Amino acid sequence: KGHPIQIVVANDDHTFELNEEALEEVLLQPHIRNKKVVVVSVAGAFRKGKSFLLDFFLRYLSADCSPDWMGDENSPLEGFSWRGGSERDTTGILLWSEPFVCRSGSGQDLAVLLMDTQGAFDSESTVRDCATVFALSTMLSSVQVFNLTQNIQEDDLQHLQLFTEYGRLALEANDNVSKPFQKLEFLVRDWSFPYEACYGEAGGKKIMERRLTVSNKQHPELQQLRRHIRSCFDDISCFLLPHPGLKVATNPHFDGRLKDIEADFTEQLQILVPLLLSKENLIVKEINGSQITCQDLVEYFKAYINIYQGEELPEPKSMLQATAEANNLAAVAAAKNCYTKEMEDVCGGDKPYINPEMLHLEHKRAFDRAMELFASTKKMGGAEFSEAFSTKLKIEIKEAFDQLVKHNETKNIFAAAR
Amino acid sequence: KGHPIQIVVANDDHTFELNEEALEEVLLQPHIRNKKVVVVSVAGAFRKGKSFLLDFFLRYLSADCSPDWMGDENSPLEGFSWRGGSERDTTGILLWSEPFVCRSGSGQDLAVLLMDTQGAFDSESTVRDCATVFALSTMLSSVQVFNLTQNIQEDDLQHLQLFTEYGRLALEANDNVSKPFQKLEFLVRDWSFPYEACYGEAGGKKIMERRLTVSNKQHPELQQLRRHIRSCFDDISCFLLPHPGLKVATNPHFDGRLKDIEADFTEQLQILVPLLLSKENLIVKEINGSQITCQDLVEYFKAYINIYQGEELPEPKSMLQATAEANNLAAVAAAKNCYTKEMEDVCGGDKPYINPEMLHLEHKRAFDRAMELFASTKKMGGAEFSEAFSTKLKIEIKEAFDQLVKHNETKNIFAAAR
Ligand SMILES: Nc1nc2c(ncn2[C@@H]2O[C@H](COP(=O)(O)OP(=O)(O)O)[C@@H](O)[C@H]2O)c(=O)[nH]1
Ligand SMILES: Nc1nc2c(ncn2[C@@H]2O[C@H](COP(=O)(O)OP(=O)(O)O)[C@@H](O)[C@H]2O)c(=O)[nH]1
Ligand SMILES: [Mg+2]
Ligand SMILES: [Mg+2]
Repeated sequence: KGHPIQIVVANDDHTFELNEEALEEVLLQPHIRNKKVVVVSVAGAFRKGKSFLLDFFLRYLSADCSPDWMGDENSPLEGFSWRGGSERDTTGILLWSEPFVCRSGSGQDLAVLLMDTQGAFDSESTVRDCATVFALSTMLSSVQVFNLTQNIQEDDLQHLQLFTEYGRLALEANDNVSKPFQKLEFLVRDWSFPYEACYGEAGGKKIMERRLTVSNKQHPELQQLRRHIRSCFDDISCFLLPHPGLKVATNPHFDGRLKDIEADFTEQLQILVPLLLSKENLIVKEINGSQITCQDLVEYFKAYINIYQGEELPEPKSMLQATAEANNLAAVAAAKNCYTKEMEDVCGGDKPYINPEMLHLEHKRAFDRAMELFASTKKMGGAEFSEAFSTKLKIEIKEAFDQLVKHNETKNIFAAAR
Repeated sequence: KGHPIQIVVANDDHTFELNEEALEEVLLQPHIRNKKVVVVSVAGAFRKGKSFLLDFFLRYLSADCSPDWMGDENSPLEGFSWRGGSERDTTGILLWSEPFVCRSGSGQDLAVLLMDTQGAFDSESTVRDCATVFALSTMLSSVQVFNLTQNIQEDDLQHLQLFTEYGRLALEANDNVSKPFQKLEFLVRDWSFPYEACYGEAGGKKIMERRLTVSNKQHPELQQLRRHIRSCFDDISCFLLPHPGLKVATNPHFDGRLKDIEADFTEQLQILVPLLLSKENLIVKEINGSQITCQDLVEYFKAYINIYQGEELPEPKSMLQATAEANNLAAVAAAKNCYTKEMEDVCGGDKPYINPEMLHLEHKRAFDRAMELFASTKKMGGAEFSEAFSTKLKIEIKEAFDQLVKHNETKNIFAAAR
């Protein structure tokens, strides 16, 4: 009863496509289309137990949240496909085909959707691919579980910052009152320091506060990052999960049965899953402050994917590529400025007519200076990367020179007329 | 006999300083100062067993590479300080105070230095801090061990790319013949898929080839990244280490004794350590193709740290910051270009004199257009970040307008004279 359906398809040419038909089949089912929707998504690096975790969510919802939802200890774990190995499995964005209908704390029937995502940072995806999947799943879910291993590192936060900014940019219609996204759950797998911060929510809170605190003593870069993340979500929490044991991590014949999983791990799962999915804790998806239904969600899927298919958004790039681009753009601007200033002294608006040959010589000199300034400015990315920028600089200087020649001619006519 | 010494000090204000005195005490000892030097460094994220590993290197070198170098199974592991917990320990760059003298395969006495580094991505370091430590340790070592957990992910490669580029930029004197760095060893800890690629060197080779292969079918971003990394190092290899067991990872009372470490792990250590440090495998530090001595190394330390203390190098930034900067610089350039083009039609070199009030009106119109173009271009980083760029744009347009006014005046004199 139910299976994963690929809703957002990642094509080989690094474009994304919505499988509208499949989406509508899931969300426009008569018994749920007009119900308010809850969307729980899990995102993060590839091969880190995301799908494995979602299958426990499935068990909980399938068992109608009953206390013995974990089931018997010899059943293989099924649902979203999970497996060992170091290569990526899931691509794009998947939904479970059968939304679960749950009565919320306030007595309203809600449709609960589970969303699995393509793992980030596999060796076939570009930064833009990863950012798109993360941003889309954050925009379309009411709870985003950010799945991490061992710790919350600064680079995890930097990725979160880039990816949420990419989402925020796409939300033009945002009312600027509500924060763009709802709940973020940092989920730290294989937490190894329970003596420092205990497993579960309380330990998670402690670690999260350490990592996300803003203080004046921090470098501004660290402060901005933390403010950015806090400004993106209504609610942020963190949960520390223990290591499930080496059998889970390493044994190729492990099929997910509880018997093979460390008790510490299943114990914490029994706390984590209801925290996200019990009737009292369900969070209805809101967009601009209004709760939406399954049917509405279809429209948002279409609208959001459209934005990422367009050309209007800036492209997320790797650190080196982005830095190289910024370095080169700044160097072009400085070099062009240098040319303009030098030529103002030669043939600016308040300078007299100058012999065209002289003007050309002066141009050559200022041009060489500007090109030399560009070349000698240290820039990341190397010579090859700089070539396009150097060409652009030459063209822009040439255009500026053409204008200067014409202005100079005007002065000549004046000289002749006198 | 020996202890770790902090050679590069990371100050609270995010500057780095060389402890020259300590460095000279280590490297100018009479019995080694003129010996060729081998420098083995370990770098990577914080809290991932770097110092722990180095202490096994110490054991091997202290035992003079004898086959039973691992020692007895109840001795605590000592040397570079290592410990459990989620907070950073080491800062800056450390050296072991006593270089080991080893006779190389060719019968030459070499001085072997071990280098420990501040872990990257802790929550107090900026991107620049991490890049500086990684770049310095790569520039100053003959073997850089890049310590990773679980897998080689694309984001690991992106960091490596940024950090090595930051090193390469500093090596002005590079002869462009030799590659900037020597050996890179990807060391994957907690490898969990021995059924896919076996532990050790052979499995490492398999994974590395999968991750670093360049093919035409890849997105150019992925190809460039891989080419960059290959172009930086003379030799790249990879080693897969098994998980050392949950006692090592999680027990606060674990003191490093062999008895508490999984046999799989120590078995692979016994292969890994000689691969890096046996007499036949030692790699003498080369700079621009020449082997250097301990004494030479002191000078390179001074020269390199100097470069990172200066202002000449571009600053490595987080993905969002770098992208935001590139987006804004590009938007400023486009907006200024828009202004220039509009005004050329109004008062370019081949246009007649225009009434100053008209000119001012036209300027207002073109200025508003340009500012509107800037504002409506989607840029990462938000309004606050854009403010400085918007101000800069206004100033540049103002300067361009001042020139145009003067040129126009010249035409007026002409008109008057006619
Ligand atoms: N170390 C560790 N491994 C896990 C955990 N949960 C699942 N795994 C294993 O991680 C591998 C990948 O799981 P999968 O759910 O397919 O990862 P995904 O790519 O993130 O969806 C499988 O071999 C699981 O048995 C965990 O909490 N810690
Ligand atoms: N999971 C795991 N833990 C390790 C490994 N090696 C050491 N550790 C543990 O990792 C923690 C940090 O070690 P340390 O060497 O101080 O890390 P560093 O910050 O990278 O220098 C300690 O608790 C070690 O016992 C390993 O290969 N795998
Ligand atoms: Mg998966
Ligand atoms: Mg350490």
